[in-house]
Amino acid sequence: MKKILKLGIVGGGPGSWIGNIHRISSGIDGKYKICAGSFSRNVKTSSSFGSSLNLNKDRCYSNYKTMADRESEREDGIDVVAIMTPPGSHQIIAEYFIKKNFHVISDKPFASTYDQAKKLYSTIKKNKKIIYGLTHNYSAYPMVRMAKKLVKDGKIGNIEFVNVEYVQDWSNGIEVTKKNSKKIFRWKLDKNVVGSSAVLNEIGTHAYHLANYISGLKGSSLFADIKKFNKKINLDNNAQVLLNYENGAKGMFWTCISAKGGNYGLRIRIFGSKGSLEWVQNDPNYLRLNPSKGAVKILEKGFHEADFSKNFARVKSGHPEGYVDAFANIYNEVADHINSKDNKKIRYYPTAHEGLLTAKFIQTCIDSSRKKKWLKF
Amino acid sequence: MKKILKLGIVGGGPGSWIGNIHRISSGIDGKYKICAGSFSRNVKTSSSFGSSLNLNKDRCYSNYKTMADRESEREDGIDVVAIMTPPGSHQIIAEYFIKKNFHVISDKPFASTYDQAKKLYSTIKKNKKIIYGLTHNYSAYPMVRMAKKLVKDGKIGNIEFVNVEYVQDWSNGIEVTKKNSKKIFRWKLDKNVVGSSAVLNEIGTHAYHLANYISGLKGSSLFADIKKFNKKINLDNNAQVLLNYENGAKGMFWTCISAKGGNYGLRIRIFGSKGSLEWVQNDPNYLRLNPSKGAVKILEKGFHEADFSKNFARVKSGHPEGYVDAFANIYNEVADHINSKDNKKIRYYPTAHEGLLTAKFIQTCIDSSRKKKWLKF
Amino acid sequence: MKKILKLGIVGGGPGSWIGNIHRISSGIDGKYKICAGSFSRNVKTSSSFGSSLNLNKDRCYSNYKTMADRESEREDGIDVVAIMTPPGSHQIIAEYFIKKNFHVISDKPFASTYDQAKKLYSTIKKNKKIIYGLTHNYSAYPMVRMAKKLVKDGKIGNIEFVNVEYVQDWSNGIEVTKKNSKKIFRWKLDKNVVGSSAVLNEIGTHAYHLANYISGLKGSSLFADIKKFNKKINLDNNAQVLLNYENGAKGMFWTCISAKGGNYGLRIRIFGSKGSLEWVQNDPNYLRLNPSKGAVKILEKGFHEADFSKNFARVKSGHPEGYVDAFANIYNEVADHINSKDNKKIRYYPTAHEGLLTAKFIQTCIDSSRKKKWLKF
Amino acid sequence: MKKILKLGIVGGGPGSWIGNIHRISSGIDGKYKICAGSFSRNVKTSSSFGSSLNLNKDRCYSNYKTMADRESEREDGIDVVAIMTPPGSHQIIAEYFIKKNFHVISDKPFASTYDQAKKLYSTIKKNKKIIYGLTHNYSAYPMVRMAKKLVKDGKIGNIEFVNVEYVQDWSNGIEVTKKNSKKIFRWKLDKNVVGSSAVLNEIGTHAYHLANYISGLKGSSLFADIKKFNKKINLDNNAQVLLNYENGAKGMFWTCISAKGGNYGLRIRIFGSKGSLEWVQNDPNYLRLNPSKGAVKILEKGFHEADFSKNFARVKSGHPEGYVDAFANIYNEVADHINSKDNKKIRYYPTAHEGLLTAKFIQTCIDSSRKKKWLKF
Repeated sequence: MKKILKLGIVGGGPGSWIGNIHRISSGIDGKYKICAGSFSRNVKTSSSFGSSLNLNKDRCYSNYKTMADRESEREDGIDVVAIMTPPGSHQIIAEYFIKKNFHVISDKPFASTYDQAKKLYSTIKKNKKIIYGLTHNYSAYPMVRMAKKLVKDGKIGNIEFVNVEYVQDWSNGIEVTKKNSKKIFRWKLDKNVVGSSAVLNEIGTHAYHLANYISGLKGSSLFADIKKFNKKINLDNNAQVLLNYENGAKGMFWTCISAKGGNYGLRIRIFGSKGSLEWVQNDPNYLRLNPSKGAVKILEKGFHEADFSKNFARVKSGHPEGYVDAFANIYNEVADHINSKDNKKIRYYPTAHEGLLTAKFIQTCIDSSRKKKWLKF
Repeated sequence: MKKILKLGIVGGGPGSWIGNIHRISSGIDGKYKICAGSFSRNVKTSSSFGSSLNLNKDRCYSNYKTMADRESEREDGIDVVAIMTPPGSHQIIAEYFIKKNFHVISDKPFASTYDQAKKLYSTIKKNKKIIYGLTHNYSAYPMVRMAKKLVKDGKIGNIEFVNVEYVQDWSNGIEVTKKNSKKIFRWKLDKNVVGSSAVLNEIGTHAYHLANYISGLKGSSLFADIKKFNKKINLDNNAQVLLNYENGAKGMFWTCISAKGGNYGLRIRIFGSKGSLEWVQNDPNYLRLNPSKGAVKILEKGFHEADFSKNFARVKSGHPEGYVDAFANIYNEVADHINSKDNKKIRYYPTAHEGLLTAKFIQTCIDSSRKKKWLKF
Repeated sequence: MKKILKLGIVGGGPGSWIGNIHRISSGIDGKYKICAGSFSRNVKTSSSFGSSLNLNKDRCYSNYKTMADRESEREDGIDVVAIMTPPGSHQIIAEYFIKKNFHVISDKPFASTYDQAKKLYSTIKKNKKIIYGLTHNYSAYPMVRMAKKLVKDGKIGNIEFVNVEYVQDWSNGIEVTKKNSKKIFRWKLDKNVVGSSAVLNEIGTHAYHLANYISGLKGSSLFADIKKFNKKINLDNNAQVLLNYENGAKGMFWTCISAKGGNYGLRIRIFGSKGSLEWVQNDPNYLRLNPSKGAVKILEKGFHEADFSKNFARVKSGHPEGYVDAFANIYNEVADHINSKDNKKIRYYPTAHEGLLTAKFIQTCIDSSRKKKWLKF
Repeated sequence: MKKILKLGIVGGGPGSWIGNIHRISSGIDGKYKICAGSFSRNVKTSSSFGSSLNLNKDRCYSNYKTMADRESEREDGIDVVAIMTPPGSHQIIAEYFIKKNFHVISDKPFASTYDQAKKLYSTIKKNKKIIYGLTHNYSAYPMVRMAKKLVKDGKIGNIEFVNVEYVQDWSNGIEVTKKNSKKIFRWKLDKNVVGSSAVLNEIGTHAYHLANYISGLKGSSLFADIKKFNKKINLDNNAQVLLNYENGAKGMFWTCISAKGGNYGLRIRIFGSKGSLEWVQNDPNYLRLNPSKGAVKILEKGFHEADFSKNFARVKSGHPEGYVDAFANIYNEVADHINSKDNKKIRYYPTAHEGLLTAKFIQTCIDSSRKKKWLKF
């Protein structure tokens, strides 16, 4: 029998939708078995939730430290911890588990402030045996990987413009007032929980990561304009950023959580000297390739010129894959890395270093918007 | 701890892609545990494949009958069998397990001929305690369920036209010759394995089922034109059918396995007295609703007017779901039915009766095409 | 100064929308000047309408025969007549003008019955100096011409399937009753005016023509099912046809005037041994090319691989053209043919022969639907 | 007979594609007759080109001043002049004709610098009897007018975000070098001809105008980043702008002439408190309306909820209109204004005031990009 990784979970208890996504994703390829969890600070809640997942009661914890301590003492203790708490605690929890020698899969953002990010990154770098994966799940769609491959292979030439946006409407169509804002945005209004910027930490982080992931570029300077919802609601809800990339390319970035009718979602376009690419998350199995000469091509997952995408697909050509399938790719790839540390293999899952760069971008956005200046980063 | 159903598998061994889909689908909601399997007629193959799934060797069988016999004797024997062999054996295997009182989840088609279908249906009807689910998986997409709901609620009025097609290219772009046809079509050339009609049993069955599933209508007469690939290759590859539905609606049906560039896939349009609906599997999270008065609406999974679709979704609005998510819905619903036989609950998974009707449709197509006549069915 | 053709018009008076289209189309390229017209059987109406077009009163007629007679006697008489009356009179008017040696541009259908069509065709063949153009305007879109070129150049190989439909809702969303049907369908209920079949003569004729125009194929046999609106309304509103083409290709054809929410319009797909094409009139500046190997291509008017389409475009790449632009192409091409009868030049406008074939198709549909048999044609 | 306006043309001679568009547009509704023109500074060229348009030789001029002088002296002199020269001369020519009491239709931009714009605007204001129309033709598409109407009627509530872009590739896929740049960009490299900014004057001006036209808003401050093609080619090719609108809305603006594969074209999205709108010029007959509650609606020209768009359409629902049809709307509306100066009528064609605001926007972009500061305007 092949080795199945024993997985522990922190967060993701009753009412957490991302918790369910992590659990399903960990199970899809049969490489993990959930063995322990700290699902709530309330003992009973954590225990009853763990039972619903068929965990033994003695492995249902109400405190992540206890969990790390006990699991590191058990012979059959977990191999990997998956962290899916709100952003503010990602760093502290991850560090605690890393120091106990557990591998980590963390929900995004890497950390909720740049300071936290630097600390966590340093801890990870010091513990070289630890595998750390960050669930920037959009980067794991088969056609995003295809896009990355096309860029790397020079199919669109030198990159000249990057245009990315992630535009949602968290109000679900309801008019937001000071009164109902707590209910609608839940913990997003609390800086200690959400971190430096709600809109940037929650969805902007995905957009910036995706742009770098596909383009292989890093931003070098930016000019940002971040807006609060309004005077009464202490929540930044919109960020618009002009960017320079290290290779001289220009960028535009937009993220918003209050764009009414904004199910446009996550959309990226990259223009190079030989053509351009477009990918839209709402329709993730397609990739639009506009060569500078020749007709526009619609690459579809698994078909012909998108053959490379099959490496990240479970279902045949013509059969769509979705959010969960991409999310599961990250779990799958982290498991493979843990099980076989072949240094020559190309790894596709998002790393701590990518998390650090994203945190730096967010901090620079905040500073630039305040100073109304171009800032290097 | 909640009861997890013990699942046995027949078929789906090495090289079977549908096997992997069934296994993933059974695991997603944590309601099944694979405990036994007959993955190959070769003892060693079945055993080694079972091991890769962490099965005990004594529950890896090389014969479905032995599996049914032994599992029925075990105290910890399976509750449900999932059948994913080629069409020709669906009926005989299903009947054997039903007679041993196992619940059945079967891959489509229900049976490979109408005669087989009638036998199997009769056996199922006699064993009233048995739950039988048929994985016409397309009918389990959230937006297909939404479409069914809109029709049922009268949102498009009385149905007047049904237009459905499932158009693929199995050659994957290669020119098919007598020489390479065996390799490309594998067992699809053998009537004993594929049944009465390759194109109709393999993909046409999905299209006809989907039309009936959403419309709630049954066909009453049809005129069909089935074509063989060519004189040299004994495989029917194209079927075009004109239909009358029991309510007077007209229908058009097209299925093809050799439509070059045919990744258009599965597409259905239903026109009623108050408007029309369109759904396309390649883009499954959307449903187009054209009211006879008023602007076209694009309903998207989970959003606003498509609220009902949330009942069949695991992921938030704006986050696409795919083939596997829909497939898993059928496993989920069959499990719920087994676990709670509340007769008042509306069941959405496809049933034996639907399988029987589809088999009858296929047989009538074959007869009509031969006789060049409209035939009632 | 270049020669501008003097154009006379029959039909297209007050309230006729197609009249306006013909007039605009004739003017766009500056090759015609409207000089005479018979816009109504009522003298005053015809005269006042002609005045609004700046015609002299003595060239505003109330009878097409008088117009043909007088204009043939004038030194400055018209060169070309454009006929835009209801279908039932196309043949008789065209023949009268042809016999007076006028060139003819006629609105479709060629004639309202196959008998009429044969007569008209014979008259045209006898008058070899006469140029006759038929405004099957959809065939004049730049990307339809592009499609025809790709087929001719073998880019999709041997054609195997043709799928065409033209699906409208003439009721504009209103429930049609016996009472309001006269208002909604105007003269379409009168066989003497509309001809053999309303749905086929009015829109089906476009769809069949388009299929042949692009594919270069002729149908050889068909099986049709034509439906009347209902028992109370004597109007055929739906026709579904299975086809065999002369080269062995299979075809499906659907046309309907009562498909609620049916602004899907005119759509054609042609599948060959090397790939397939799709064109949709609602979005006419694009052509989808699905090669059997390689990614789907979206050819856009004027861009790169669609360079050939520039021959039929007036506006730069990236700037859409529409219905009127295509319609004007036919006027333009007929003018060029009249002005320069170079026999080596490829002519793209639809001809009398194409009109004859379409009339034959319609008659065969009517016969097949009645006899419930495959019929050769 | 109704009064037909006598039209004179300045510019648009041999090789000018916009010249042909103006001529076709002026003719479509039969409200203008081209009577005079100054098509080239070369006497012979102007004369032979005029002949090809059936103009008398004595009304073919080689100098716009002579044309204005002579035509103002003739009894049958022109009523309106249409200016379609490169941007640098728009102002001086328009002023000359205005002072001679001719109505003016001018191609965009209003003027090539803000200084010129102020002068021209002042001249127009002083000559109150003169009608001045600016061919910001995109604003005349039926579905743009529909969008403007929806905004005005409050259907999307208070506007919060405006996102507009016009992204082209003038190189037509060719690699641009210093050597070939003169050929590719023709006069666009010469500031005296193109004005303050090539990318902004040529296409950015359309995008900014469109945003204001639909939203009914004016920008109040902006931060711009304008980029030159490269060090060797003295041409600004890319402009990215962050905007604040007077009502507090945020805006993003992008225009580029060197976005390889950039046939994405002109695209605008406006988000309000009750929903959002999206319109894309490549597919101009549709308007996407995303209500904050309820399903996305696709409004199509002429259909149902887009009934208002019929006021600006010549062709029936389901039949696409394009660039020329929209362009002709401006000619049509200017003619109507000239012919009937009813002050109560709502006028839709773009005016001098809109031109002035656009010129101010462009100047402010240039200043902001240089100073790297937010600037009010």
